[in-house]
This record gives sequence, C-alpha cells and structure tokens, in this order.
Amino acid sequence: MHSIAIHGGAGTLPRAEMTPDREAAYRTGLEAALDAGYAVLDRGGSSVHAVATAVRILEDDPLFNAGRGAVLTHEATVELDASIMDGEHLAAGAIAGVWHVRNPIELARAVMEHSPHVMLIGAGAEEFALARGLTLVPNDYFKTETRKAQLRRVLVGDTRPANELSALGTVGAVARDRAGNLAAATSTGGMTAKRYGRVGDTPIVGAGTYADNKYCAVSATGHGEYFIRVAVAHDICARVAYGGISLAAAADAVVMDRLAKMGGEGGIIAIDAAGQVVTSFNSEGMFRGACSSDGKREVAIYRDR
Amino acid sequence: MHSIAIHGGAGTLPRAEMTPDREAAYRTGLEAALDAGYAVLDRGGSSVHAVATAVRILEDDPLFNAGRGAVLTHEATVELDASIMDGEHLAAGAIAGVWHVRNPIELARAVMEHSPHVMLIGAGAEEFALARGLTLVPNDYFKTETRKAQLRRVLVGDTRPANELSALGTVGAVARDRAGNLAAATSTGGMTAKRYGRVGDTPIVGAGTYADNKYCAVSATGHGEYFIRVAVAHDICARVAYGGISLAAAADAVVMDRLAKMGGEGGIIAIDAAGQVVTSFNSEGMFRGACSSDGKREVAIYRDR
Repeated sequence: MHSIAIHGGAGTLPRAEMTPDREAAYRTGLEAALDAGYAVLDRGGSSVHAVATAVRILEDDPLFNAGRGAVLTHEATVELDASIMDGEHLAAGAIAGVWHVRNPIELARAVMEHSPHVMLIGAGAEEFALARGLTLVPNDYFKTETRKAQLRRVLVGDTRPANELSALGTVGAVARDRAGNLAAATSTGGMTAKRYGRVGDTPIVGAGTYADNKYCAVSATGHGEYFIRVAVAHDICARVAYGGISLAAAADAVVMDRLAKMGGEGGIIAIDAAGQVVTSFNSEGMFRGACSSDGKREVAIYRDR
Repeated sequence: MHSIAIHGGAGTLPRAEMTPDREAAYRTGLEAALDAGYAVLDRGGSSVHAVATAVRILEDDPLFNAGRGAVLTHEATVELDASIMDGEHLAAGAIAGVWHVRNPIELARAVMEHSPHVMLIGAGAEEFALARGLTLVPNDYFKTETRKAQLRRVLVGDTRPANELSALGTVGAVARDRAGNLAAATSTGGMTAKRYGRVGDTPIVGAGTYADNKYCAVSATGHGEYFIRVAVAHDICARVAYGGISLAAAADAVVMDRLAKMGGEGGIIAIDAAGQVVTSFNSEGMFRGACSSDGKREVAIYRDR
C-alpha cells in the first residue's frame, strides 16, 4: 500500500471562531497538498519526493505557519526551520534560522541529498542554498497581514502566543511509496514573537521528524520545547522498535499520555511500515489529511471531522 | 552511589604519534575536569552543576575541541555548540553557532534554567547571553596555533579532517548526584573546516546529549552526522527503557553495532540510574575518565589504558 498523511499544525482556531469560509479555505489548502503528494506516490515516485512536494505546497499557502504566511518573530522578521528524513537510508537534512529561502523544505532536502552534513543554520545555510541554486526571496515575501496583526496582539499583551492560531503551527507530511520506503518532512516559522534565535522541534531530527523503514515515519506539530525534551518522533519509533507495540499505541503513549502530562500540547502524524496512517493529538484539533491506495481519502480539522 | 564520567572526544591521536609529554598533558586536563566535577557531587551538589563544571574546565583547556582550543571553520573562525540536560525534570538547554560566548555550556545551562526555550542559535543566542550577563570574548580568544595549523593542512589537502585529532573532538560529562538525579552535558567546536553553518550532534538533544533519571544519562562524541541520524543518546536510553536491556548492552548495540556498520566513528559515556558508568567507542581511543563514591577513579585514552 502506498499512502501519505499531512498536517497543517495542531494550532487550530477554537471551533467557535471557525467560520464556514475559513474552514473551507483550510480544507482546500490541505486537499491541494494531499493530492499533489499522493499523485507523486501514485505515479511511482519516492516517498521523499512526495513529502517534499506536499510540504512545499503548504509552505506556499499563506494560511499555514511555514514558508509564506509564517508567524513573525519579536522583531517582526520571519525565521524558518525545516527537516526531512529518508527512512530507507536513515538519511536526513535540516535547516534552522533561515530568512530568505522561499521553500525551506527544499533546502533541507538539498542538505540531505547534496551535502555531507545533516544540519545547517543561519547565514551558512543560505550560502549553501545559493550554491545549490535555490530561490531566495526578501524576508517581506513571507509576511502576511494576518501574521502582522497576530504579532501586534501578542506584543501589546492582548493575547498570549499560545492563544493564537499560530502557536502550534507547523506543516508536515509522512509517506510510504510503492517500493515500501518511508519518509517524513516538517517545516515551520516557529512561534509568534519568538526571540533570541529560538528553535523548536521542527528542524531537530528525532524530535519533529524521524523515519526508519523498519518501523515508521513521524512528523510532529506542537509546543516545540516539550517535543524536543521528549524526542517525540524518535521516541514513538523506539517504542515500536524495542517495545514491540503498534504505532498507534506508541503514538498515543507519547502524545496523549507523556506529553499531555507534561503540558506539551500538539500532535503527530505517522505511517507504519505497511503504510497504515496514524494520527494522535492532545489539542482541540489538528489540520490534517490522509490518502492511501486502498481508496481512503480524508481531510479533517477537529477530533470528529 | 554518586559518580561522574567525562570525555574529551573520540578523536585521539594514533598511538604511534602520542608522545609521553602529550599524553601527560591530556591526562592532566582530564583529571582536572574529573576531580572538579566529582568534588561538586561529593559536597552534595547537583549532577547538573557537576557536569557543567567539568565541561567548563574542558572548554577552558586549549587541548580539547570545545571553547578555547576549538577547531576552526573553513573561514578560520570558531563556531561553538553545546547542550545540557537535567534528567530529573527532562529539562534541556542547547545553543548552536555561537561565536563569542566564552563558555558555551554555561549559555546552554542558562537557556535551560532561565528561558522558556530549549534551543537558541546564532546572534539571537548571543543576545540572550548578554541579557544573562555571561562573559563574551573576541572570536580570536578561542583560536590556538595548533588549530590554525590543522586548518591549513586540511585546506591545502595535506590531510582530511577525519585524519586530524580534531575530527571527532567534543567534550562532555554525565553524572549521578547524591539525590539520585542524572545529568548530561556536551560541548564542541565541531569539525575542522566546517562550512555553511554546519551543526553536528552536540547541540541536538537526543543525539549528542540525553538524560532521564529513570534510565540513564548519555554524552556522545563522534562523527556528528551519523550520531544525529541514529539519535544516539536517546536511542541508548530507549533501548534501556523499552527493550529492558542493560545500559552497557544498549550502548554497545548502538555504538559497536549500529554506528559501526554505518561508518559512524566515535563513542559515548553514560551513567545508569544506579550510578554505574558505561563507556563505549568504536574509534581507536576516546579521552575519558570516571570517578565514583565506591572509590573508583580512572583516566584513559586508548582501549586498554
């Protein structure tokens, strides 16, 4: 079975504030990414290409907190993080603190495929992006009016970042291709009003992203500090690998029990070695979608729909 | 039992090039860090303070690849990474790509203890260091003649980074205090001639550093890219936690089997919940030392001494 799952963050609007128009826009964005990623798998493409394709579309969609439409830092700039992992070779690429790379997931993929390194940060990562011929854009390209307004509300104390739609925002994808190879990818702008070069779990291989053909591929979204401390993506894989439990049980043990007890809000999407999709989140909702060759196709936001 | 173990990197000189004078200098440096860290534990101090103390001394020692004496980047600058984790609270702090903070481990500790974040990078991390009143120094402070000569040899192709003493250099410590709390800390200058803001496993919580009171504390040193891909420190903890095997068996499974098969050279020091020290390395040697309240005290470089 080939299959893909995507997420657009665990920071959904409270259901009370979700208008039909807004909801339709989110669903359209999720469907576009899901269908494009699934199409890659359907025509025999690799899971790495499928997850990168889906994430790139979510990065380009201003509704989601990654690429264009990313949240703003305390200084009203945008700083982007991303990572990708290939479960066949346990290869990985990650970038953090990037200002000008239009599609951070493409840079993470270039690090994985065209450098001897796994993680590049800041200006050095952009030097590598230029060397690889990736598209750079002004920092303003990423900024939307919605995010500017969110930052203003947070800075004047009208709201806390955790209460904004953006707080748990991330985008990601996991996939299994026809050859049975797994991959995971995650991308984000981080947390509204973040300071001091703060980096969350998204670019941390083992926290925000992990993939191992034998067990599973995982992409996380949530309060990144908790996700790093628990090494969420790797912890889920390890419970499957060494504890011999199912991916669904492992995901719930980490997300619904361990993270929830610590106060770490968010969730994960994952896919097991057979292509079965698992989602788990302890937040009110999680933008998500899944599509597989057994004919299932679903997009959802809240727990029940 | 309270106990501490330290390492000064898995990139030792080939035994043929290790003169008695050089060896004595390394042993003196290791002993100073080991004894200072152990003294913290002996007088009832925390494992967090013990590992930070030991690592700070190794950072200040120009022989080891961390703080002063760190290896140089391709552009002949020094860029420093570090992380620390408190196994009681699963709290962690990490910094990467820092140029001017005299003791990176102190900054990682400040991130853990005085910020809501886990990881800060680059100029933002230095802004936080200034806000916390940490000591900043010119980048030249870190550069030694030995490292300048190493960089020249690498850049003219006389040698590959992997053949230099520096290649697998890192310093780190793990400890168990009288209260039974575990901690781990790791610090490095990375890899000689590194480019593009490359970051290895040292500041990655779960790769270079992990600590969980229930299972173990781990600090790694080696070819960082492999260590990130395997999530070495967390993988060792997870094998103990979910596989129910001993820390020694878990460490060997990761270092001697999994990493060795991938070509990932290096090693780890670790300490279990009872305070037993474990070391494992697949390189020719690893600068290391251990001291515990049962009267054991040892410093070693190669496999047999």
